[in-house]
Amino acid sequence: MTLIKFIEIMAILVGAFSGFIEARRKRMDLVGVFTVAFITAFGGGTLRDILLDLRPLFWVTHQEYAILIFVLALVATPLIRTLRHILSEKLIVIADAIGLGLFSIAGVSAALDANMPIFIASMMGVITGIFGGVLRDIVCNEVPMVFRDGKPYAICSFLGSWMYLLMRHFEFPHDFALWSSATFITGLRLLTWRFDIKMGR
Amino acid sequence: MTLIKFIEIMAILVGAFSGFIEARRKRMDLVGVFTVAFITAFGGGTLRDILLDLRPLFWVTHQEYAILIFVLALVATPLIRTLRHILSEKLIVIADAIGLGLFSIAGVSAALDANMPIFIASMMGVITGIFGGVLRDIVCNEVPMVFRDGKPYAICSFLGSWMYLLMRHFEFPHDFALWSSATFITGLRLLTWRFDIKMGR
Amino acid sequence: MTLIKFIEIMAILVGAFSGFIEARRKRMDLVGVFTVAFITAFGGGTLRDILLDLRPLFWVTHQEYAILIFVLALVATPLIRTLRHILSEKLIVIADAIGLGLFSIAGVSAALDANMPIFIASMMGVITGIFGGVLRDIVCNEVPMVFRDGKPYAICSFLGSWMYLLMRHFEFPHDFALWSSATFITGLRLLTWRFDIKMGR
Repeated sequence: MTLIKFIEIMAILVGAFSGFIEARRKRMDLVGVFTVAFITAFGGGTLRDILLDLRPLFWVTHQEYAILIFVLALVATPLIRTLRHILSEKLIVIADAIGLGLFSIAGVSAALDANMPIFIASMMGVITGIFGGVLRDIVCNEVPMVFRDGKPYAICSFLGSWMYLLMRHFEFPHDFALWSSATFITGLRLLTWRFDIKMGR
Repeated sequence: MTLIKFIEIMAILVGAFSGFIEARRKRMDLVGVFTVAFITAFGGGTLRDILLDLRPLFWVTHQEYAILIFVLALVATPLIRTLRHILSEKLIVIADAIGLGLFSIAGVSAALDANMPIFIASMMGVITGIFGGVLRDIVCNEVPMVFRDGKPYAICSFLGSWMYLLMRHFEFPHDFALWSSATFITGLRLLTWRFDIKMGR
Repeated sequence: MTLIKFIEIMAILVGAFSGFIEARRKRMDLVGVFTVAFITAFGGGTLRDILLDLRPLFWVTHQEYAILIFVLALVATPLIRTLRHILSEKLIVIADAIGLGLFSIAGVSAALDANMPIFIASMMGVITGIFGGVLRDIVCNEVPMVFRDGKPYAICSFLGSWMYLLMRHFEFPHDFALWSSATFITGLRLLTWRFDIKMGR
């Protein structure tokens, strides 16, 4: 339980940062920067919880994360400028890949706890993993990147979610199933990025 | 009850097919094709259930439909290519009109079961009938077609929903009210399409 | 309680009118005009209630408002044409500022009643105040105005929500806290509009 919470926190910060960058690219003001970062960070998990009717939402019971994103949004411009010197594209892709793995497995795990059927649980993993970015792109008036670039981003989430479901089915220890599946998603995402693998259409 | 479920299933397949076509037109990849088809098929009913706080969602308890759309998405490209030789525009419009009738009446019926006031029930019929397509267009970054083409698509759904509400009020047999109202919507939609009727603005 | 309901009603009519104008600008038909007006009027409060899992929704228990917007949508074209001679831009900005104040405080008050933590309550105030317009812009395929114009619109809502939260914390009379905070938001919005104040980016 604590493990899954810790997982979500790390993923949230990566999501918020991706929201900052996209909002800035669209020349949004402070309100837009905060909102888009918030939606990117919490959108996937919130959509999952609304679909499964789980309450209270994670960010409602943990207002400290909302406050953290708010404070970061206030300093987003200097923050991004500073981090740009430190962070290469590579580092951002790595952080994002970690977020994808963590969010996805947190999502599929929450769906199992809510007694969802197995295919729906795998969908909830993917929704938690990618819909923050999908909602970010919709608010920024773009066709969601993850639906059109042909890169196996959601596919990594989907395959890792099934790996987790199978490990749970065969009664592997929870923590081992969780970390190895999340690591699998992150590793697969990085491999496909490194070798620029695209799916056919 | 079984009747209404059967109705939704037929409408779902028509919706998914319309999603396949739109996602392809936007040059989306497999993930986009599946998601857009899923949203088109289940979006209207899901929005209705979220607004009315009904759970579990139809596609959560019937994961076989999600799996079916997933399998169809895998073969969407050859599927559309094959069906293009078989299906004329006329056939697609007819199938879509059947879907509109079935979804709308399923929606208004679900709203009555949830003790909604009568005008809200008619709105739920229209939402179930058209919001799959509305959400599809939003995800595809278009102004929703149904809001701007001036064709009486939602109007057909609205009138048929009221026909159903009146028949229920005057205690017609359930099945008769259901099928005659759905048929009315489908017929009216096809008539207005055939004679290219537009509303004034 | 009655006070808060009265507040929401006034704000709803202002929201619907702003939806009429935007839908017309996008050359939408009757269905689009009604839907966009409805979303603008009820979208913020509905999103708040879905996030907090409050039901039934305001417009579900009060179908008279949905019917009112429906009737107004039927006469939207002559209505806007007539009102254009009567209403200056100034009057519309004033009405909208009143709506912002009323919606925001109704939102933060509802969140407090639902025992939300304080920062989340202030966010719910802003969501109720601005997300009708945000959803309107998303449906109209625009980047939401409130995220990009650099004007302190959401900021006014945020500051007034905190004023209300502080007054409640220090046990001011409910009605006084409510009206003075809503008035503060409206006044601050009008002042920043009058002097064309922008935030830095």
